Amino acid sequence: MDRVRQMFHHHPAPASDAGDEAFALVKAAAECTYTCSTCADACLEDSDPAALRKCIRLNLDCAEICSVTAKLIARPGPQDQGLLRAQLDACAAACRACAEECESHADTMEHCRICAEACRHCADACDAMKGKLVA
Amino acid sequence: MDRVRQMFHHHPAPASDAGDEAFALVKAAAECTYTCSTCADACLEDSDPAALRKCIRLNLDCAEICSVTAKLIARPGPQDQGLLRAQLDACAAACRACAEECESHADTMEHCRICAEACRHCADACDAMKGKLVA
Amino acid sequence: MDRVRQMFHHHPAPASDAGDEAFALVKAAAECTYTCSTCADACLEDSDPAALRKCIRLNLDCAEICSVTAKLIARPGPQDQGLLRAQLDACAAACRACAEECESHADTMEHCRICAEACRHCADACDAMKGKLVA
Amino acid sequence: MDRVRQMFHHHPAPASDAGDEAFALVKAAAECTYTCSTCADACLEDSDPAALRKCIRLNLDCAEICSVTAKLIARPGPQDQGLLRAQLDACAAACRACAEECESHADTMEHCRICAEACRHCADACDAMKGKLVA
Repeated sequence: MDRVRQMFHHHPAPASDAGDEAFALVKAAAECTYTCSTCADACLEDSDPAALRKCIRLNLDCAEICSVTAKLIARPGPQDQGLLRAQLDACAAACRACAEECESHADTMEHCRICAEACRHCADACDAMKGKLVA
Repeated sequence: MDRVRQMFHHHPAPASDAGDEAFALVKAAAECTYTCSTCADACLEDSDPAALRKCIRLNLDCAEICSVTAKLIARPGPQDQGLLRAQLDACAAACRACAEECESHADTMEHCRICAEACRHCADACDAMKGKLVA
Repeated sequence: MDRVRQMFHHHPAPASDAGDEAFALVKAAAECTYTCSTCADACLEDSDPAALRKCIRLNLDCAEICSVTAKLIARPGPQDQGLLRAQLDACAAACRACAEECESHADTMEHCRICAEACRHCADACDAMKGKLVA
Repeated sequence: MDRVRQMFHHHPAPASDAGDEAFALVKAAAECTYTCSTCADACLEDSDPAALRKCIRLNLDCAEICSVTAKLIARPGPQDQGLLRAQLDACAAACRACAEECESHADTMEHCRICAEACRHCADACDAMKGKLVA
């Protein structure tokens, strides 16, 4: 993802000085999109997918929401701050709900343990980005 | 979208009795996804796209967020209510921000007038769905 | 989705006279996105989701691809014809693979029967749109 | 994205030995999704966005298609090979069309130069992955 960071420096009119937080969030949300996609697939392939329905649903929801967050934050130009704030709230909520569920079976499922880490990391990156939004 | 409605009736374990609100929201959010996509494209093709940058950005953001809302709501099984609430808030915020911008030039741009209608309709459908979520 | 159709008539520079086929495809691909999302969710909630893994995966893949097709076709301005052709091929392939799988258990699962119909309808709409692309 | 790679090793039933190519493609397609999103935004903010309409459209299309490719490939379980092949073809076509357009003004626009690199890299990763699909 280094090319994204480089491109942030060449954007003609970045709306803020939040480039570092923004790039960190694009990276975290992209990673979380794909750890959740892989986790849903691994849970589906488990010997007892019926026991993992809740995890699969949260994985799919979280992947969708993180994917949009990364796209919105990858646009450094001027954006509606209220819209961004609401999206960051939704993303952090999705990541935390998914992390909690994955953590509940992290002892026995390594893919869930790793996915929960990615979710926590993305939720924190959402919070850091929120701190850079203007009133 | 009638097939979506029919399928809701054949889902083996719907989590709630919110089928009508859910279907109305899937329809409204799908429509808004594509009116916003068309509006961004029409603004880009306008003789002066530089004057429409804000509208194009809000169209693109709103299309992304509505698309995810429709996907999440199209899953009638049990879902995390806090996550849904946050997504509905983000979606309503995106729709209202986009509607406001589109309305500001609805007098001269018919595609913006129609797009604003779709955005308002989707925001209202988000609110109706929120009323059906459990605490 | 009527607002999308209306907006097509107000686009300042449509690239072709394929408005009818384009609108039909946006509608079919949007419907298929959400029937597939609902079908995956219904299969996951089935008493034996392990028996439906293949159907769930194809539903998820088909929903993703149809969603992008609808977004691309909802932009009436000039687009790369080779790119569109490849996307329409991918979409028709996804829809037909998903339809075939859903049809294999349509006798016992009504949601799969309906979803297969939506997939076949979207695949045909892709073919009709391909016929309107320029060499 | 290292967590995605780790999770591939813990998937209970990977469908093939294409883990290295798959992970490389998830990484390349994710990067390309976001370089294209940033490039569209930078072009929109350019002093003359009307001159960059084609680039903006290709950026948006390529971002959508790459995003789906990464999601599909992030599922290591058994998948329909014909569907994957068609999606990889569409993705490579989108990346090459976008790269060509970006390269045409890479001399004066550094963000386009970098974006074209990401597009070429992703197209090559699609080709490498195609070589691992079974007949």
